[in-house]
Amino acid sequence: MTKTLKIGIAGLGTVGCGVINLLADNAKLIEQRSGTLIEVTAVSSRSKGKDRGISLSPDVKWYDNCLDMAADSNVDIVLELIGGSEGIALHLVEAALSAGKDVVTANKALIAHHGAELVKLADANNASLLFEASVAGGVPVIKTLREGLAANEYSRVVGILNGTCNYILTTMEKTGRSFDDVLKEAQELGYAEADPSFDIDGVDTAHKLAICASLAFGVAPDMDSLHIEGIRNVTYQDIQSAYELGYRIKLLGITARNAANGKIEQRVHPCMIALDSPLAKVDDVLGAVQIEGNHIGKVFLEGPGAGAGATASSVVADVIDIARGIRVAPLNVDDVHTDTDGNADSAAASFSPIDEISSSYYLRLSVLDKAGVMANIASILSNGGISLASLIQHQPTNDRNAQIILTTHQTNEKDMQDALDTIAKLDTVTHKPQIIRIEEL
Amino acid sequence: MTKTLKIGIAGLGTVGCGVINLLADNAKLIEQRSGTLIEVTAVSSRSKGKDRGISLSPDVKWYDNCLDMAADSNVDIVLELIGGSEGIALHLVEAALSAGKDVVTANKALIAHHGAELVKLADANNASLLFEASVAGGVPVIKTLREGLAANEYSRVVGILNGTCNYILTTMEKTGRSFDDVLKEAQELGYAEADPSFDIDGVDTAHKLAICASLAFGVAPDMDSLHIEGIRNVTYQDIQSAYELGYRIKLLGITARNAANGKIEQRVHPCMIALDSPLAKVDDVLGAVQIEGNHIGKVFLEGPGAGAGATASSVVADVIDIARGIRVAPLNVDDVHTDTDGNADSAAASFSPIDEISSSYYLRLSVLDKAGVMANIASILSNGGISLASLIQHQPTNDRNAQIILTTHQTNEKDMQDALDTIAKLDTVTHKPQIIRIEEL
Repeated sequence: MTKTLKIGIAGLGTVGCGVINLLADNAKLIEQRSGTLIEVTAVSSRSKGKDRGISLSPDVKWYDNCLDMAADSNVDIVLELIGGSEGIALHLVEAALSAGKDVVTANKALIAHHGAELVKLADANNASLLFEASVAGGVPVIKTLREGLAANEYSRVVGILNGTCNYILTTMEKTGRSFDDVLKEAQELGYAEADPSFDIDGVDTAHKLAICASLAFGVAPDMDSLHIEGIRNVTYQDIQSAYELGYRIKLLGITARNAANGKIEQRVHPCMIALDSPLAKVDDVLGAVQIEGNHIGKVFLEGPGAGAGATASSVVADVIDIARGIRVAPLNVDDVHTDTDGNADSAAASFSPIDEISSSYYLRLSVLDKAGVMANIASILSNGGISLASLIQHQPTNDRNAQIILTTHQTNEKDMQDALDTIAKLDTVTHKPQIIRIEEL
Repeated sequence: MTKTLKIGIAGLGTVGCGVINLLADNAKLIEQRSGTLIEVTAVSSRSKGKDRGISLSPDVKWYDNCLDMAADSNVDIVLELIGGSEGIALHLVEAALSAGKDVVTANKALIAHHGAELVKLADANNASLLFEASVAGGVPVIKTLREGLAANEYSRVVGILNGTCNYILTTMEKTGRSFDDVLKEAQELGYAEADPSFDIDGVDTAHKLAICASLAFGVAPDMDSLHIEGIRNVTYQDIQSAYELGYRIKLLGITARNAANGKIEQRVHPCMIALDSPLAKVDDVLGAVQIEGNHIGKVFLEGPGAGAGATASSVVADVIDIARGIRVAPLNVDDVHTDTDGNADSAAASFSPIDEISSSYYLRLSVLDKAGVMANIASILSNGGISLASLIQHQPTNDRNAQIILTTHQTNEKDMQDALDTIAKLDTVTHKPQIIRIEEL
């Protein structure tokens, strides 16, 4: 006999409506695959009257307050599709888990900030907490890290995790237009928010990366130890220079085991990556992740990183997992170390600050076209123990500035930043130096 | 308290040794992630004395006959890493499942030919039967189809599933050398077997595709309904022409819901695919799959499709699933329809023969350089209702043959084959026409 699972959906935005549409479209298939009838019994949203283009049975109960829905005995699984790391989304998930209900969420901010404490709460109440849709939309990155490649010690996870940034960078490259110009267009097209800082300053990527780091390295998600830079300072000239050097510029989220000290790196910043690497070929709003493990080598996943259908696909996959009785520690270890505020226990987690990473670097300097400038810069780098890999000097433009573009061999971030501080203070350097890390994939 | 799962490994070839090495390397991590101590308690192989470069505890019991190992009460999970669709591998899996032991196998031929009956046997004995390593080596294609994207109605799964073929085609393209020449080198390098027909004639790809079709469309794996062509007839000239037309040639396994009749297509053959599609960029021995579903759109997975480490990664992931108590119907439906011999019930399965597919085609014809030849060919195609998309006529070589290269718009396979039969019989056509399907991705 087919069992029934009753779903309560909180949040009827793009994703909530996408889930309702998917459950209706694929009802029979999902019942076959899971042996379970998935029934939406309750929904909650702020404005009841709004036309959302979805059809809900009159039997579906409407809640103005989603916390009341979490207490409904006619709801087995709560889908939290509201968003935001604090406030109502957090309260809802806490209330649902405390009531012993399973929770599925697409909320990366929530898991990045409160993942460890919520997993504990779920465990204590014998409930599931799943969040496949929180990373890379429809691409099953979390299941792959937690299960598909679980036999491996992970060395690095690298992802293009924000469609807005990838769209902007791809469009700048294609059209030669400036960041500001392309951002404005992206906002008009609805690819970027009115307040775009969450996306373009790397915060959204960071949320997703913190979750990947937790899964890959068995630590609690920890936003405090995460280095974040966005793409505001990337210019078309950098993109062009990258191409000449055999690279493409992408905003990457990178979490890796630091080879020197064994600690965990978590960093979001623009990177130059080799043109022939799979991640370099990810265009527009697609999301992608490269996962590296000690026996598997490299696995690459790519697909729609956002959108109603793709996100709903992951949300409902989590529901199907629950229906099938799949129960795995959500963050890949049975016991995530946390301190009292739910953040990673710094002793246990041991993250490596950005200062401690090792990388190659691209440097673009605007300098006065005078004798001795290059010698001066070269000697500062050399004194810092930094070895040059390539150097291009462009003819001065009519404002008497010359452009020096150089790349370095592998060096320490701290040495590089120290050298850069010294270089920036030179009278002959006319603008803030541009620095972009080169990530070998 | 940590529980223990006792593993018996049958077959100590590349994969068996890879599994033993992985379990030793990552023992602590696997115990953390699964809450289970995985212990190898028994092994079985033909030659005990052979030096395999692995270290086994003296407590590990050796079996000359793996069927005896299947009866060992000190073995919970049997890993079948022998290979072959019949004989000892089949008997071992049957014996282990009948004894209520869980089975993990990397054996695509076995699952392609006996998957449905073995799943039934596993169910009847309340045992797990898992085979992630059977498709695309280390890339978790099976878990993605069965779980990660399980909310979707699949429309198509397309894969590069054989590293030998992909290596040969990639090398032909890079070097301009002939198929025979590159095959010979691949054999010398150990990338191709002494008897390469299993790989290059598409049989290995077909085994993997039959498993993908089963997972995607909820039918029993059915080799009988699968159309198979290998890569022996692909020439460098075809590869070059493909490139000029904006395509690359890959041996693909394709399973899709036929848009016209709703039946399931299963076909393995060389394809031309657009240069900018992710599958076209898969080089050398990598494996890759594109999965398409009604809400997700397209997801692309790529990674090492073979090799000790990658295959072991998938085998041990299955073991971890068992340790974690994950139990999902192995072929994505609870009840696969089969007839008495374990093959798909033709009424239930309803596969579409190759005749019924619709495709665009590339055609290369060697013709006499005489007036009216082209008009004749064009009228045969036109009479068959086949519309031309492009046509290139090359100057005759010194043997008085001209080469005509043409591509068609979407047309029915049967119409195309009928027209081709007529064309092949023309006195002016000097060689067997070459035909390669163009797959839109």
